[in-house]
Amino acid sequence: MPAPAVPFVSFLSDYGLADEFVGVCKAVVLRAAPAARLIDITHDIPPHDVRAGALTLARAVQYLPEGVVLGVVDPGVGTERRAVAVEVETGYFVGPDNGLLAPAVAMLGGARRVVALTNPQYQLEGPGATFAGRDVFAPAAGYLASGVELGELGEVVDPLSLVPGLVPLPREENGSIVGEVFWVDRFGNLQLNIDPGELEAKGLRPGSVLQVAYGQERRRGRWVGTYAEAGPMELAVVVDSYGLVSLAFDRRPAAEDLNLRAGSAVTLSAADDDRGVGA
Amino acid sequence: MPAPAVPFVSFLSDYGLADEFVGVCKAVVLRAAPAARLIDITHDIPPHDVRAGALTLARAVQYLPEGVVLGVVDPGVGTERRAVAVEVETGYFVGPDNGLLAPAVAMLGGARRVVALTNPQYQLEGPGATFAGRDVFAPAAGYLASGVELGELGEVVDPLSLVPGLVPLPREENGSIVGEVFWVDRFGNLQLNIDPGELEAKGLRPGSVLQVAYGQERRRGRWVGTYAEAGPMELAVVVDSYGLVSLAFDRRPAAEDLNLRAGSAVTLSAADDDRGVGA
Amino acid sequence: MPAPAVPFVSFLSDYGLADEFVGVCKAVVLRAAPAARLIDITHDIPPHDVRAGALTLARAVQYLPEGVVLGVVDPGVGTERRAVAVEVETGYFVGPDNGLLAPAVAMLGGARRVVALTNPQYQLEGPGATFAGRDVFAPAAGYLASGVELGELGEVVDPLSLVPGLVPLPREENGSIVGEVFWVDRFGNLQLNIDPGELEAKGLRPGSVLQVAYGQERRRGRWVGTYAEAGPMELAVVVDSYGLVSLAFDRRPAAEDLNLRAGSAVTLSAADDDRGVGA
Repeated sequence: MPAPAVPFVSFLSDYGLADEFVGVCKAVVLRAAPAARLIDITHDIPPHDVRAGALTLARAVQYLPEGVVLGVVDPGVGTERRAVAVEVETGYFVGPDNGLLAPAVAMLGGARRVVALTNPQYQLEGPGATFAGRDVFAPAAGYLASGVELGELGEVVDPLSLVPGLVPLPREENGSIVGEVFWVDRFGNLQLNIDPGELEAKGLRPGSVLQVAYGQERRRGRWVGTYAEAGPMELAVVVDSYGLVSLAFDRRPAAEDLNLRAGSAVTLSAADDDRGVGA
Repeated sequence: MPAPAVPFVSFLSDYGLADEFVGVCKAVVLRAAPAARLIDITHDIPPHDVRAGALTLARAVQYLPEGVVLGVVDPGVGTERRAVAVEVETGYFVGPDNGLLAPAVAMLGGARRVVALTNPQYQLEGPGATFAGRDVFAPAAGYLASGVELGELGEVVDPLSLVPGLVPLPREENGSIVGEVFWVDRFGNLQLNIDPGELEAKGLRPGSVLQVAYGQERRRGRWVGTYAEAGPMELAVVVDSYGLVSLAFDRRPAAEDLNLRAGSAVTLSAADDDRGVGA
Repeated sequence: MPAPAVPFVSFLSDYGLADEFVGVCKAVVLRAAPAARLIDITHDIPPHDVRAGALTLARAVQYLPEGVVLGVVDPGVGTERRAVAVEVETGYFVGPDNGLLAPAVAMLGGARRVVALTNPQYQLEGPGATFAGRDVFAPAAGYLASGVELGELGEVVDPLSLVPGLVPLPREENGSIVGEVFWVDRFGNLQLNIDPGELEAKGLRPGSVLQVAYGQERRRGRWVGTYAEAGPMELAVVVDSYGLVSLAFDRRPAAEDLNLRAGSAVTLSAADDDRGVGA
């Protein structure tokens, strides 16, 4: 790939913003590529939570400009896990080979070429245990942004050897859809791993009343178009801005009210009194 | 307006930094305007708190470079509230028409032209409920920064139809000034909606001792020039760096000590033993 | 110094990100230097904690690109403490003269020239108590980044008059090394003010078992190369990515488990059953 006109580097990590980790990684990118323009996707992925990082990256990636995506959630730093750079149609991903990048890479059409970041010429030599974000990943992202050829960064490896992302799929059980919470957002809305097509296959449609079951609880929710259509205490079932089924209240955090978090199981079915038009 | 030499886009929201919302909006701006330079005003406005967002924007706006201001605190997303772009002397504001932008627009001399963001050509098509920051506001900010003419973004509307900002004014009661807390800052300092001129009109002046009443409490404060002039346990009444009267302790959070928060009522008057030089 | 090709301004403060302080300071920098490129080191230094700010700056500074470093942790704002700009080999530091900048300045070879920021032409006039970050430091950083000569900003002062940084050194006591916690990072790892050379001088080496004493507690730790080498409940003694001795668990926050924080005293010695090869 030729270097793009504006060398964007989009950056996601679990480093938080309290320490200087993110700033130092950006500085390292900019020393390798002074013209690079950085975009923070987020740095508040819970520490070591590869799954949350992978889901966040997959949600964001279709909106990012062409260029380099630097992703670092790396509980295995210092072990045998590989550090990789992955070429896709729109640029490169740089990060640990632990499933963090895989869903986003797949969304962009899959890996064209992969190298393991093994060339020490394109790394910083740290004084002790590796801070891989600073010493390995940020330099690689910077050099790619500055036009260095992918093959320079290390040895080519088989794209099929990449660790896959583990994205849980919903299953059907007694006519219900058993899914889980993918993500609790800032506003307490609960994104599920359920596509609206799966509701439609049960004869449900916008306006239908659903039974929403979780833990020992069971309550009714209504499939509405926007949060604001829900009544003051009504549970809204909404296709969210990413196209997935979500649970929400109007201007109140559903996660708190329902006491659910990322990974919680949620079962959706037609309410007894509303089997939907197709039932 | 001609596009400025450096297309700055200053961005305020209630999105927080834990999710990818801010990063995705910036990415959308940069895809429309690759040369844009983004400045984060803050993204930690409490969720849905239009008043806090409006006050923060009003404090910041006079320091921002010319260009576009993107403001998103939007509890009414998905309802009939309008999405607007507002031309002012120094550039454009983009955001919901809910009072968020109004005080800042007024501080820059008022609206010259306003359009409702109704042209779908300058919006992203979301897969479900609208994420207006990403799908409507960020594209508009980006296109304006890249030189697209305001009128392209939608239909012109009457500037007088904009929802006004509601900024509470202090009132006089029994010779006292009854105001409220506008803002609690990082250091626990309490900015009031009281101008020092109102104290001066009561004959108070720097050095005066005031009675500060809130809830059932009453305590004495001294009008000093800087926090550091206050004694170790002395309540300081200070004209803050924005020119408003504030309550503070030296290096201790007054909000915690006094148990006050944004919106709390505070009454100021001359202390019995210090009616001020003019009284 | 000639202005660098890309005028980088690296920024550290205790302003937090909830208020508009950081955004306003950046806006002020960019109004003075529209081509400046800002890097946030961090803004989450605990309020008024000059020591934490100085240590963070010292850790970051060797990775920053050439240019201006703007550091603001300023409990003495409004007092007689000086505002300064310091020329070093790679650019300039701007901030309060309270020890915040001193360790980082020393790491870059020391101060070449220093001016007190006394020229009001290069400051903003605030409407009340000084917000020195916005009114004094950010303008100075911006003007230096835009190529203004250091001497323009105020009067030259003796570099030897700068307030020194106070970085606590470990001491030896009964054959043990008594140090303290410099820093608790995002992951709960505890960086000590102890150099691995001091352990080696006691005959300890990678693989050695140490006694780690703090408060009334005593436990064993093993000197390993990376966090991941430690067993599931084993306390790891690791030379961290900055070259200092640290205490950590694999993927668990040591600060929480050991109940230690920045400034806590920690004593290291050879465990009774492992005096090390040289003992």
